[in-house]
Amino acid sequence: MSFKLSELAEKTNTILYGDGDCLIKNVADLSSAKPGDIAFLLNPKFVQHLEKTRASAVILKSEFQDLCSVPALVTNDPRLVYAKIANILNPPEEMPAGISKSAIIASDADINKTASIAEGAIILSKAVIKAGAVIGPGCVVEKNAVIGCKTRLSSNVTVGYGCIVGDDCIVHSGAVIGADGFGFVKDGDSYLKIPQLGSVRIGNNVEIGANTTIDRGALEDTVVGNGVKLDNQIQIAHSVTIGDNTVISAATAIAGSTHIGKQCLIGGCVGIIEHLDIVDNVMITGRTMVTRSITEAGSYSSSTPMDTTENWRKNSARFRRLDDLAKRVAKLEKK
Amino acid sequence: MSFKLSELAEKTNTILYGDGDCLIKNVADLSSAKPGDIAFLLNPKFVQHLEKTRASAVILKSEFQDLCSVPALVTNDPRLVYAKIANILNPPEEMPAGISKSAIIASDADINKTASIAEGAIILSKAVIKAGAVIGPGCVVEKNAVIGCKTRLSSNVTVGYGCIVGDDCIVHSGAVIGADGFGFVKDGDSYLKIPQLGSVRIGNNVEIGANTTIDRGALEDTVVGNGVKLDNQIQIAHSVTIGDNTVISAATAIAGSTHIGKQCLIGGCVGIIEHLDIVDNVMITGRTMVTRSITEAGSYSSSTPMDTTENWRKNSARFRRLDDLAKRVAKLEKK
Amino acid sequence: MSFKLSELAEKTNTILYGDGDCLIKNVADLSSAKPGDIAFLLNPKFVQHLEKTRASAVILKSEFQDLCSVPALVTNDPRLVYAKIANILNPPEEMPAGISKSAIIASDADINKTASIAEGAIILSKAVIKAGAVIGPGCVVEKNAVIGCKTRLSSNVTVGYGCIVGDDCIVHSGAVIGADGFGFVKDGDSYLKIPQLGSVRIGNNVEIGANTTIDRGALEDTVVGNGVKLDNQIQIAHSVTIGDNTVISAATAIAGSTHIGKQCLIGGCVGIIEHLDIVDNVMITGRTMVTRSITEAGSYSSSTPMDTTENWRKNSARFRRLDDLAKRVAKLEKK
Repeated sequence: MSFKLSELAEKTNTILYGDGDCLIKNVADLSSAKPGDIAFLLNPKFVQHLEKTRASAVILKSEFQDLCSVPALVTNDPRLVYAKIANILNPPEEMPAGISKSAIIASDADINKTASIAEGAIILSKAVIKAGAVIGPGCVVEKNAVIGCKTRLSSNVTVGYGCIVGDDCIVHSGAVIGADGFGFVKDGDSYLKIPQLGSVRIGNNVEIGANTTIDRGALEDTVVGNGVKLDNQIQIAHSVTIGDNTVISAATAIAGSTHIGKQCLIGGCVGIIEHLDIVDNVMITGRTMVTRSITEAGSYSSSTPMDTTENWRKNSARFRRLDDLAKRVAKLEKK
Repeated sequence: MSFKLSELAEKTNTILYGDGDCLIKNVADLSSAKPGDIAFLLNPKFVQHLEKTRASAVILKSEFQDLCSVPALVTNDPRLVYAKIANILNPPEEMPAGISKSAIIASDADINKTASIAEGAIILSKAVIKAGAVIGPGCVVEKNAVIGCKTRLSSNVTVGYGCIVGDDCIVHSGAVIGADGFGFVKDGDSYLKIPQLGSVRIGNNVEIGANTTIDRGALEDTVVGNGVKLDNQIQIAHSVTIGDNTVISAATAIAGSTHIGKQCLIGGCVGIIEHLDIVDNVMITGRTMVTRSITEAGSYSSSTPMDTTENWRKNSARFRRLDDLAKRVAKLEKK
Repeated sequence: MSFKLSELAEKTNTILYGDGDCLIKNVADLSSAKPGDIAFLLNPKFVQHLEKTRASAVILKSEFQDLCSVPALVTNDPRLVYAKIANILNPPEEMPAGISKSAIIASDADINKTASIAEGAIILSKAVIKAGAVIGPGCVVEKNAVIGCKTRLSSNVTVGYGCIVGDDCIVHSGAVIGADGFGFVKDGDSYLKIPQLGSVRIGNNVEIGANTTIDRGALEDTVVGNGVKLDNQIQIAHSVTIGDNTVISAATAIAGSTHIGKQCLIGGCVGIIEHLDIVDNVMITGRTMVTRSITEAGSYSSSTPMDTTENWRKNSARFRRLDDLAKRVAKLEKK
């Protein structure tokens, strides 16, 4: 698919400089772009690439326009315009409507005619697949689950019974929505399972990464708000709620009944314990362990810095006597 | 399904106060319960909900009975009785015995007549599926694997060749039992795989979370004891053994040949290195890194507390000079 | 399968002592070996097992040969010879060439006659399965993906469209290769997806653990070098590159566009942030958080040591005032 630069300017509401007739086929990195590509410049650090770029056009802020020898689209947000153009040039593959011959479909499943059900997908009783949804190969949609309009499940995804995925979502391969939450009560020496009676409700425009798991609620549903983006291998426990447009990076785990606000940015490898409340607009840096509620917007961290193993051993041995050290300092101060 | 309160009192061996004929259909939270629901009160903090509750009955300790205006079941362990009643009201769905038309079954697999094999499940040669077991859609049970009586695999579970899952287990979607352990030996610049010759043996009444992985042993089998409960995305390496009734929260990883005792409680995001021994009745709090054996029962921790990123940066920079700081304090003390 | 000890000596280029005609069927641990087994002795600590071993033969260094009462293979690297013999005695199961009746194969997929396609495997349009490759039950190989010669996918593996897996690789169950990288750009209150246009290229002789995820590149491909070994539940983000023969343990996560050198050893539960460069021959110990590039070979660490929860609470509370403590010490020193 290719577009005239002038068409892209119009579609993205940017100011065109130079030859609007040049044809753009791909997006690329400024330094490795070839003719037919459009690249973007955000960081002044990379301005030297601008002179030498072989890109057919560049997206940039007006301040760099004079330095640009090729046609340009000028905007205040080059990264956003780049993403918009990347989407225009690379629309999601159109999947053929209809049910693959090898898919396994319950007779009482409700599958919209415009949905696309791939090879070997399994749709159980009373599941609902809405208009334009794409169910990938090997996916299992269990009883009474609902897959929203234009939502796409990649391969080998599992959506548990009664769980609801909204419209325009993307669920990557191996993700599991709606496994039982982890709830037990001690009964003598062993543990008795607490039935997990809630469901999972996922909003619209949500992306869920590969092998991410979102458990069904214990009593209250687990709820993922509109526009939430979850990376790979994230664990969302039972009855967690996540506010709209919150973004969470890979390998983060959130324990049961914790409520996370809107517009949060949570890094990778973060752990958040159960029954916390985190307000809107909170940023949590990678590898932080969150053990108390966060009541004010802002940025939060924990963990310790990397060092050579040799230095780290010495410092980390001292950590085990830090309380003692502090007391010794207090004693010195008293003298 | 609904029961008279008097029936529930009898089944749970609790003391009934008030109208035993009231019908109970669901369990619910004390604050959001509706007529037909039974709730429980554990924490005195929530005693104010007792007056206003719309629940048809409440499970509580005798000390709160006078404050309760609705029928009650009195017990010393309201949470356990709650769980028992939740199980009575919500028995696992009965799955129809027999093999789904779309399941793929080796001609020499040994499948009990009372087992239920779902759509698209794959059972390979000489696998054994015992009485009342339920194999979910898209599951793969490899050669010679054994699935115990009444054990349930959700969807897209993989049980590797020769692995044995006991009776009354639940294995959630995407779990992988019996992948190769991670064993290599350096051979010049590259690594030679050490064949992983052991298996995985899982006891009875074990629950295994979504996308959790349990590797086969190198030589000795990997063994998960009776009553063990594993949350989602846990990694159990080759030849690990886990004692009966140990409970492990999500995203924890246990390295090879480590032995964990009985009745342990291991938090989420914990890492445990290889070749350790951990005795019975050990608690390990979330995000702890365990680098040495634990020889005494008790509670263990590591990690550092969350702070604002600004404060954390300052403190964490100091951590890199902690050994130096301690030496400086010692010098001051000498003066 | 069994071999004469003399044959094993010849195949592994080791020096035979004692009866070369004794038959070896299995490898085993020195302490638990039975007749027919061969064991190895590496650590002088275990030399007392040598006298009592019931093994038919032992692999050891020449210094221990005199202590050995059974036939022996003498070598400078007993572990390597052990691994070679383990491979000789336990070759990977031969899978029958051909396509299982229940596999689902696109009419334009290119499947070598010598490849083995298991029950319920799904091979989409224009995918290429090369000579001797084994595609396990329930695997999905998406459009245009390439699976190299003799490469084996276990069960329920997903290989995304256009991704390339080299020769002689092993991919364990539940792994997902080629899900979209995690890239978004803020667009008002919500986020716009950045199309992930790269692919994943995996070298030869790579092993990928169960439920590990390797995302496709944003623009540049994600590249995993020859001989790389990845344990279970590892997350490799978009456009990461990993050099040849690097080994990474379980539950480690590597963020986008980070480049890792050759011959690195990265422990479990490690987190590595985005856009870093790590040189060759770096070792990173378990649970380290890597937040800056590593420009020199060597060993690196972070995290804090485990303690009893009681001690840890005290020390960790002091951590939050470490900067203050350091300032107080500086003040004392000035006096």
